[in-house]
This record gives sequence, structure tokens and C-alpha cells, in this order.
Amino acid sequence: MATIKVPAISSMATIKVPATVPSPAEDCDQLRKAFQGWGTNERLIISILAHRTAAQRRAIRATYAEAYGEELLKSLEDEISGDFERAVLLWTLDPADRDAQLANEALRGWDRSNRVLIEIACTRHSSELFDAKRAYHLRYKRSLEEDVAKYTTGDFRKLLIPLVSSYRYEGIEVSRKLAKSDAKMLYEKITEKAYSHEELIWIITTRSKAQLIATINHYKNEYGKSVIKDLKNDRKNEFVAALRAIVRCTCYPQKYLEKIIRLAIKGQTTDANSLTRVVTTRAEVDLKVIEATYYKKNNVPLEQAIKGETSGDHKKMLIALLGYDDA
Amino acid sequence: MATIKVPAISSMATIKVPATVPSPAEDCDQLRKAFQGWGTNERLIISILAHRTAAQRRAIRATYAEAYGEELLKSLEDEISGDFERAVLLWTLDPADRDAQLANEALRGWDRSNRVLIEIACTRHSSELFDAKRAYHLRYKRSLEEDVAKYTTGDFRKLLIPLVSSYRYEGIEVSRKLAKSDAKMLYEKITEKAYSHEELIWIITTRSKAQLIATINHYKNEYGKSVIKDLKNDRKNEFVAALRAIVRCTCYPQKYLEKIIRLAIKGQTTDANSLTRVVTTRAEVDLKVIEATYYKKNNVPLEQAIKGETSGDHKKMLIALLGYDDA
Repeated sequence: MATIKVPAISSMATIKVPATVPSPAEDCDQLRKAFQGWGTNERLIISILAHRTAAQRRAIRATYAEAYGEELLKSLEDEISGDFERAVLLWTLDPADRDAQLANEALRGWDRSNRVLIEIACTRHSSELFDAKRAYHLRYKRSLEEDVAKYTTGDFRKLLIPLVSSYRYEGIEVSRKLAKSDAKMLYEKITEKAYSHEELIWIITTRSKAQLIATINHYKNEYGKSVIKDLKNDRKNEFVAALRAIVRCTCYPQKYLEKIIRLAIKGQTTDANSLTRVVTTRAEVDLKVIEATYYKKNNVPLEQAIKGETSGDHKKMLIALLGYDDA
Repeated sequence: MATIKVPAISSMATIKVPATVPSPAEDCDQLRKAFQGWGTNERLIISILAHRTAAQRRAIRATYAEAYGEELLKSLEDEISGDFERAVLLWTLDPADRDAQLANEALRGWDRSNRVLIEIACTRHSSELFDAKRAYHLRYKRSLEEDVAKYTTGDFRKLLIPLVSSYRYEGIEVSRKLAKSDAKMLYEKITEKAYSHEELIWIITTRSKAQLIATINHYKNEYGKSVIKDLKNDRKNEFVAALRAIVRCTCYPQKYLEKIIRLAIKGQTTDANSLTRVVTTRAEVDLKVIEATYYKKNNVPLEQAIKGETSGDHKKMLIALLGYDDA
């Protein structure tokens, strides 16, 4: 039998896993109980799934399918609904498979203001993006690149195909010479408003994170303003907004995601979808940093803000993923 | 201790591995003996390395480095030379690392007639190309995409960046509708001689192998001539020749590689580099099919042709990789 590799939980993660974790069979047994009888025991579902790592959830899914001849995700779909269902399903999925699904949803309902694809392509580690692309093959029997080309058009297509295709180097080495020439190129193209110029697209979609940060630092030193600010001159241009999102997502992912949460909460109606997406995709990665950034920016604990904007089991699930219920 | 996963040898491979393989420590001991004393025992080197799988060679490299505090590849470099050295070094490398090195060599000495990058991007399985890109990160501290952009220009750059970036779907499912519309697009662009049109580039660099084959079959049925033939009208255009190579490499890799070997052998002077590259990169993959294709095309066994064109230890090494010496 294959042993399950359990990676250590990141110190930036918020989820809490009990010191002694029940076996997958015990967890499945409890989940099955939560589904049976009058009504569903949502509390029990949360108390199990929200406190297991990706590897543990994978083992639960496999054990469940074998024991009951049905996919756990299917059972969950039958038992729960609404924002709570969305949160539990996204969370229970394998991260790579979840990203594949989110990317596919973003493409099928494509509009130029949609930033989910950029979020997935830029906030993930290169190897995680590759895993998502592999999951996309399995799920949809074609490549993510092909669907980007199918659903997007014009300059967005020219931008998004390389964005999801590139396998960015993840090392910390940077070339100052390159930072200088890339900054010059960016400055020229932005000044000329040649936003879809192939060199500009090429730099922001292909360079490593460390190299891109070096470039935007050099840009600021050399030209006096930040790339992000210079990309704000064309406020209504969705393409320029996408470029800005790519730079922010790639260089400052936690700041970017804090803003997504902030906007999701601050609007007249809460954007439950974005809130759920960021919490479920980052709870095991860096939500602690996003939480700290949120507090710094808003002077309100994220936990409290989420409690004020959500309700019922959806609220309980998000708070559990934030690590604030009793594991 | 981690156990070494030994994949089964492909039935299309030519290398022969003895029924009982010595331990990596024993192999290293023998290799060390081959390097010592007066002269090098080339025969002993071949009798070991040419008869080990990639996983076995990896174990030998690791054991050698640990036992002698020196990389096996370094010792080999010191002991042997010329075409024999090239063959042994390429063969001894991990396939992904070897592809990374070959791609880098092709880029550093870039000229528009160089097809090695295309060979690597298109004849490898998508996951192998990805492994090569990961090896490229480790070896060169930047991405293959970045180096393609650095060393190539113009239309070639527009073609080769997506070619090495795409993670092509490898499944066998094809869409007839897509084959039809892609064939129409290719026909239009080829007829207009708009060879670097983004749609044309996009189709041949992103579609899965099965889908591309369906497209070129549909092209032939619908328009009466093959894509390859239609791409021969501009014989002297290197860019068009590159497009042709991509289609042939992707759809008919063994036929393509047979031709590389044929041309390497047929020229006034033997192209030892190409011959060595194809034999070492395919001996564990599909050289048996390439060999059969060669015989069909030339009525001469490949073994005999290689024996006539090479000499000394280089010849012995290639013949051993073809599976014709006593393992």
C-alpha cells in the first residue's frame, strides 16, 4: 500500500489540525453519519473537513469513494447548498483540481473584468500552476491554453495565453542588468500607451517573481513613479487593469488577495464568491499573512469582518478555515 | 532510505539490460577501475553504462559522487574525448537534464536553421518537456522561455516561445469540429503566405498531438494536398522550414528522427553530433521504431549504416545503445 505523504502545514496557514487525527475511515464514518437521518449535521461536516490538510482530505475522498461507492463531493452536493456548499466543495477539492475548476469557470463565463484567471496564474507557485494545468487536462480533456484561446479575444488573448503557459523560474537570483533593461522597456511602452506590445507582455508574463520585483524597484528609482501608478493613468481601460493585476498578483500576492477580500466585504452586497474563493484557496497557504495585512489596512480583525458579512454555516465554515473555532 | 523506482523499459527501446544488474556500488567500482592505471578501459565503460536504464544510471551517478567525492560526469570528461565522450556524457545524463543541456546549446549557438529546440519541444511527451523545463531552471537559474526570448528574434521568437511554453494535452480524444476549423485556418494562412499569423502559430504550438494529426488529415481530405507539401512551396524560407519541422516532429516523431539520422549519415561528412543526439535520446524510448523505419526507407540496417560511418569507441557506444553488442 502506498503511504500518504503529509507535507508540513505552512506557518502562514490558518487551518488547525488536531494533534491526533482520526483515520480516514473514521472520518468517513462520521461524515456518513452527518449525511444520514433527519437533516444534515453541518457542524459535524465542518468539524472534520475544515480541520484536515489537503493530503488528509485526499485520503478521506479516496476512502469514502471506496467504502460507499459514491464520490464524497457528490454526497456533499446532495446534502448542503448555497454559499456553504460552495465553500465546502472548493475546500474539499485537491488544490490543483480546485484551481483547474476555478480557471474553467472563469473562462466559461469570461468577461474582461474577470481577474480569477490572473489570480490563479500569478499567486500560485510555478509548480502549483503546472499541477493545475495537469489537473485541467484530466478534467476537461484539453489544455488550459486551448481554452484561454477559445474563450478570450484580442489583446486579452495575447496576454493570457503566455500568462498561463509560462513556467516562471522561482529562484531568488536576479540580474540587475536585466532589471534595468526590462524597466526601460516597460517605461517606454507604458509612456507610449503601447500596453499590448509584445515586449511588455513578454516581460510581465515570463520573468521570475524575484526578477519582476527587481524590475519594478528599478523602475521606481529610475523614473520616479511606480509601474502600478503609471498603469493607473488609464483607469477605465480593462486591459491596463489586467496588467496592473498581474504585476500586483505576481509581486505582492498577499497584498493583492487582501484587497480582493476587502472589496468583497466592503461592497453594498458582500461578494461571497470572491471571499469564499480567497479563504478556501489560501487557508492552507498564506491566509495568516493576508489576515495580518487586512488588520493593518482596516483596523478590524478579518475574523470579525467576515462574521459581520456572512451568516449560518457559510460563516462557520470560513471562520473554521481561519482557525477560530475549536479544532 | 528512498527506494529507486525503476520504470519498465519501453518495448520500442533498443538498449539491453542484463537480467541480473550489479548494484550501483559494484558498477561504480568497475567504472573507477576503468579510469585507473595506464589508459582508460573504454570497453568496460561501455559494457556498464550502455546497459543501464535512466533510473539505474541515476543511482550510479549518486553512488559514485558519494563514494569518490567527484561527479561521474566529471571523471568521464577527464578520461575520454571526442565523439565518444559526447555520446557517453549525453547518455549518462538524466533525460530531462540532457534535454535542458541540448536546448541551452541550441540557443547559445542559435541560428535559424537549427532544429534541435524543435526536436526537443515536439518529440517529447508533454510531461517530459516539463521535466526538461524544470531541469533548465535548476541548471541555468532562469527559464527556458526566457532564454528563447533572449537568443531568438522576430518571427522565430513569436513561434518558439509558445512552442516551448505550451503544455499540450496528451489524450487521444479529438474534436472533428475543431480539426475542420483549424484546417481551414491553416489553409487560409498558408495560401496567403501569412506564415507567422498568430492563429497559425497558435494551432501548431498548442494543440494536442492527436488533434493536430486529425487537423492535417482533414486538411488533406478537404484541400487535396498535405500541410507538409503546402509548406514546401517556400523552400528557402527558414521559418517555413521550421513550421514544417514542428508539424512533422509533433505528428510523426519517429519518421522525423529517422530522417535526421539519414541526413546525418548521407552527407559528405557524417554529422556525428546529430547521429549521437538521436541515438542517445531515443535508445530508451523508441529507437527500435526509428531503426525499422530506417531499414524500410534505406534498405540497409541502421546498425550497418552506423558502423560504416563511425569509428572506434564512438561506434562501439552507438552500436551498444542500438542493442547489438553482448550486454
